[in-house]
This record gives sequence, structure tokens and C-alpha cells, in this order.
Amino acid sequence: TLAAPAIAQEAPTVTWRVTSSFPKSLDTIYGAAETMSKYVSEATDGKFTLQIFPAGELVPGLEAADAVSAGTVEACHTASYYYWGKDPTYALGTTVPFGLNYRQMNAWLYYGGGIDLMNEFFNTQNLHYLPCGNTGVQMGGWYRKEINSLADMQGLKMRIGGFAGKVIEKLGVVPQQIAGGDIYPSLEKGTIDAAEWVGPYDDEKLGFQKVAPFYYYPGWWEGGPTLSTMVNLAKWNELTPAYKAILSSACEASNSNMMASYDHKNPTALKSLVANGAQLRPFPQDVLTAAYEAAQEVYAEISATNAPFKKIHDSQTAFKRDAYLWAQIAEYNYDVFMMTQQQAGKL
Amino acid sequence: TLAAPAIAQEAPTVTWRVTSSFPKSLDTIYGAAETMSKYVSEATDGKFTLQIFPAGELVPGLEAADAVSAGTVEACHTASYYYWGKDPTYALGTTVPFGLNYRQMNAWLYYGGGIDLMNEFFNTQNLHYLPCGNTGVQMGGWYRKEINSLADMQGLKMRIGGFAGKVIEKLGVVPQQIAGGDIYPSLEKGTIDAAEWVGPYDDEKLGFQKVAPFYYYPGWWEGGPTLSTMVNLAKWNELTPAYKAILSSACEASNSNMMASYDHKNPTALKSLVANGAQLRPFPQDVLTAAYEAAQEVYAEISATNAPFKKIHDSQTAFKRDAYLWAQIAEYNYDVFMMTQQQAGKL
Repeated sequence: TLAAPAIAQEAPTVTWRVTSSFPKSLDTIYGAAETMSKYVSEATDGKFTLQIFPAGELVPGLEAADAVSAGTVEACHTASYYYWGKDPTYALGTTVPFGLNYRQMNAWLYYGGGIDLMNEFFNTQNLHYLPCGNTGVQMGGWYRKEINSLADMQGLKMRIGGFAGKVIEKLGVVPQQIAGGDIYPSLEKGTIDAAEWVGPYDDEKLGFQKVAPFYYYPGWWEGGPTLSTMVNLAKWNELTPAYKAILSSACEASNSNMMASYDHKNPTALKSLVANGAQLRPFPQDVLTAAYEAAQEVYAEISATNAPFKKIHDSQTAFKRDAYLWAQIAEYNYDVFMMTQQQAGKL
Repeated sequence: TLAAPAIAQEAPTVTWRVTSSFPKSLDTIYGAAETMSKYVSEATDGKFTLQIFPAGELVPGLEAADAVSAGTVEACHTASYYYWGKDPTYALGTTVPFGLNYRQMNAWLYYGGGIDLMNEFFNTQNLHYLPCGNTGVQMGGWYRKEINSLADMQGLKMRIGGFAGKVIEKLGVVPQQIAGGDIYPSLEKGTIDAAEWVGPYDDEKLGFQKVAPFYYYPGWWEGGPTLSTMVNLAKWNELTPAYKAILSSACEASNSNMMASYDHKNPTALKSLVANGAQLRPFPQDVLTAAYEAAQEVYAEISATNAPFKKIHDSQTAFKRDAYLWAQIAEYNYDVFMMTQQQAGKL
């Protein structure tokens, strides 16, 4: 018998709307979706087009994944922890307090079965999850007054988003949900005592140091927050194998590309912030210890009644335990030596 | 006038031979080339094929880039520092002693103009450079006897590759070039006193702890070694825009993917090595300080007569100085707190 001649299959034209949970002003995070879109378009000579829309243009930022799940739009670029109120398991696709750092998150996602575990859950939500961006460890926010001990956290009205609020309220903090543009006037008037945003690069644009000069670190609730592209499950399944591969590869590249972008921008922004009045402060040890214990309580409470959360959180925790053992050896000691040189003016 | 009708352009069939500088037994490094190849093949329905060959099958491992430059093969997967003898500028595409760490290297490459700077040089060598993999900070190698101070390095016969040898010989070490498979018997017989390889995952396979149990850290000559896919410049220029985009995106994804793979494998390997007799030791501070000073001397010597080296090295150094300032704030303090929890058995 003769083999059938190969018929040239033309690549299909696919146009998706991708709603971002972020405004264009958060250009590095918003930019990760643009990078993904650019890579996909270039790889397909423009046949597979991802049109990125800023938060609010099609869908409110905090409802992006809901719109994707419902099929209103094909995909979104978001932080899955925004939806923790539907199910705390959502938070594990981004980060939880004292979670995995950037490199550990990638190791767990790409080699520790993390992506499959997350999709086992997200598929029940009609979503396909692709990691797509990371901020690295964020800062712990801006405070009008110094925090000298855990007692100073008591009664503090703090702008802090989402799942972290559930943990920090155990320290006596009163979490406030305030949109980005309203934070500065709230701090200025003293309606709130503190606010967290992202890190030096994004924070600098909002000028917080003028009204709340004490800039605390580390952001223990944001150890390696992973952004993601969430695709409507049916739309994902409709893609050709080549388009699935192109989108996956573009997201994996954008995931690392966004971290590189922040790592390039944050050092300059930090120097500028300090030159303009920001006063860097480490959180007191008793604050970190109490926060860590509060977080463990929250995880135990949720795990007692939520099997998917427990399964995924246990997997992350087991990997984290070993990863932080290894991190103490080569990486840590290399970096500490280099930091010592930096402090001595020898770098 | 009427617009010309769009004519379906079929994607061309392109088959390249990619010679790796590594044996298949270094499966994580070799695997980065395989990941790149897989992503490219899947994205093009198999039309753009990168056939990966292990070191020695087509071309000896340390001559891979030469073969690409000469057009014998279209591309290679290599560490550009292997070719430092042709020009030390090659080394800057991988790493130099006390160079940028993994995240800093990516920030510099993708946002600090690094890729363009490297290609400005590599194009003169008939090569196009695409970062494609990283090991993270490596270990400082296996020693038959303990190193208690700089004096113990004097006269040490050590298997250490390439450019690092030029620095470490200033400490009185006698660098030896020995292929992977010959290291174990050389250590066993005492023909050499020490040997560096990669890190826990790769080192464990070779069983060095049985003959040289002291396992030192950090590998100060390997702070963030970047592997790369090097493409013959004419072959690169012949690619369609879509194929250039697909290969670039595949390399950027593989770059991060390889780091994730090591970060997943090394913790388990480290625990296993220690359980089997490896004794972890930090390099004495005077060794690190002397090595750092020796490295600065080498950079000054080369920079005095090699303008491309100076330009690129100065760019890396300027970024490193700021990056290690910022690294001391959020990332470092987050990780240190988590390491403290790990040590206390609370992670």
C-alpha cells in the first residue's frame, strides 16, 4: 500500500482575550503577560494572538479567574491567591505566608509534581494553570511608626491583601482592603497605620516614604509569589498540540523573565528610595516568630477540613524542608561572602 | 488597488545537529539541551528538529563551539568558559570566580544588556549566544585532607577546570585537567589531593566521598554558571523570524527549567551524601579572601589589554554591586529566617 501523502496543515488562527488582574502601572507584572503574548505571537507569525487587557477594562481585577472559569474570556493573568475566599487551595498556586521562595517554587512546580497537583485542583474549577511570573521576596510594607516588638503590631490598621490578612490578624493587626490608588491618602491622613504593596520598584512610584517612612523587611507573606496564566479548561483542550507547547514554553520563559526584570529594577529603586527618605528596618524577631506560628495554626485549621489544600500544602512543605537544608550550604555561603565584600566596598 | 491575497506559507523543515559538551551521564545539564529540543519540536509539529549528540560522538566536548564557529555543526550546547584560552571574554558568558549568582546573571542577561553585549563579542567569533541552563552555586570540591587555612592550599594538586585554574594557582594550588571518569582513581591513588565536579546530585554518582571525604563549600568559582546554546551565525541568520522566536523562547524556558531540576535534585542528594560519609566543611575565610583578591588581580590584568573583556566584565561588576545590596534586604532575611526554622526542626 502507498502511504498517504502528507497534507500541509495550516496553523489555525486563534485570538484570545486575556484579562489581567493588574493595572498597566504595575508594568513589570503586567509586562509578564505582554511578554507571554509577544513570544506566542512571534512563534506563530501572529496566528495565535493573546490580547492583554488591564484590570477593569473587561473584568474587575479580582474577578479575572471567575470570568475565565465561566468562559466569558478565554484566559487571564492573575495571582491565584486572590481567590482564596472561594477555596484556600487557590492560594497555594501563588504563595502563602512563609512559603517557598522563587527557586524553590519553580523546583516544586516543574520537578516536584507541583504543576500537576495544582491542575488536579484547578481543573475542578474549570481552569488550566500555567505559572507565569514571580516577584521574588517582597517587602513588608510601609509604617508610620517604628515597630519595636510584637506589641506594636497590636491594633495596627494595615492595608494588606488576601490570605495574608487571615494570618496577620492573629497578631492583632486589623487588615484593610484598599485599592492601590487609595493607599497614599489613607496613610497620609492616618486612616491606616501601615500598608504593603510590592517591593522597591513598584513602591517607589507611589511615594509612600513621604507619609510612612519606615520600610520593613522581609515580606514574610510573599516569599516567592507566582503569577499565573489561567486558561478556560475547554479552551485549553481545544488548542492544537503545537499551540499548547508554544503557550507553555512562552509562560515558562515569561515566568523567569519577570523575575529577571524585577531583579534588574529593584536594586536601583532601593537606592533611590533610601536617598529620598525611606528608612529600612528589619521586622523584630518576635514578630516573625509569632507570624510563623500563626501561619502554622491557619494551615492546620484549613488542612483539617480541606483535603486538596492539605495534599498540596504538605507537598510544598516537605520540599521546602529539604530545600532550605541545601540552601544553607553553597548558595547561602556564596551570597554571604559576596554581601560581606559589598559592605566592605570591595565589590 | 487590490491587496494581494495572503498565501499560506508553510513552515520550513529545518534539521540541525547540536553537539553537547557534556556526556549523557551529566543528565541535568545534558537534559537542558533535550528540553530545548523538545520544546522546539513540539512548537513546530516536528518541522524544526534539533538532534542532540553527546560529547565526543560528533565533536569532542571542549571543541563544540569551534565546530559551530567553523560550520561543521549548526549549533552546540556548551559552557562558553571552556574556550577562555582563545579569549578570556568567552568565560563571561558562563561565569568567572566571584561572578553573578543565578538570578543576577539572568537579570543582567535579559534586562541589563548582557545578551547583546555577549553577542557583540560572540558574533566576532561567528557565533550567536542563547543562555540555556544554569547549575546554581556549585560545591567547592572533594579533599582528601581538611583545609584549615590558606597555608593548606599550598602545593595542593587539584582537579579544577578552565579559567578558575588561572585564579586558584595564585593561591599555590596546582590545577590539574582530568576527565570526569579519571577523577575517582586519581583521588584514590593520591595522584591528586582534591577535585571539583559540580554539586551534590552529579557528585554523588561518582562516589568521591569514599576517597576524599571533605566536601567544601561554596564553589567560589561557580557562582551561577550559565550554559548556552551557541548557533553558527549564518545558520542563525537563515532562520525565519518565527523559528528564531521559538528557539529563543525554548532556550529561555530551558534556562530556568534546568535550574529548577537541580534545585529539586540537590537537596535529596546532599542528605544521601552526608549519610554515606561526606563531611561538609566551609572554606576558611582566609582562603575565600585570598581567592577573591587573586580573582581581582586576574581581572585587572586581562582588562588592561582586552577591551571587550573589560567592557563586559565592568558591566557585570557594576550590576553585581547593586544587586548584592538589594539581596541583603528582603531575600536574605526571608531565607535566613526560614533556615533558622529548618535548623530548629520547625519547617
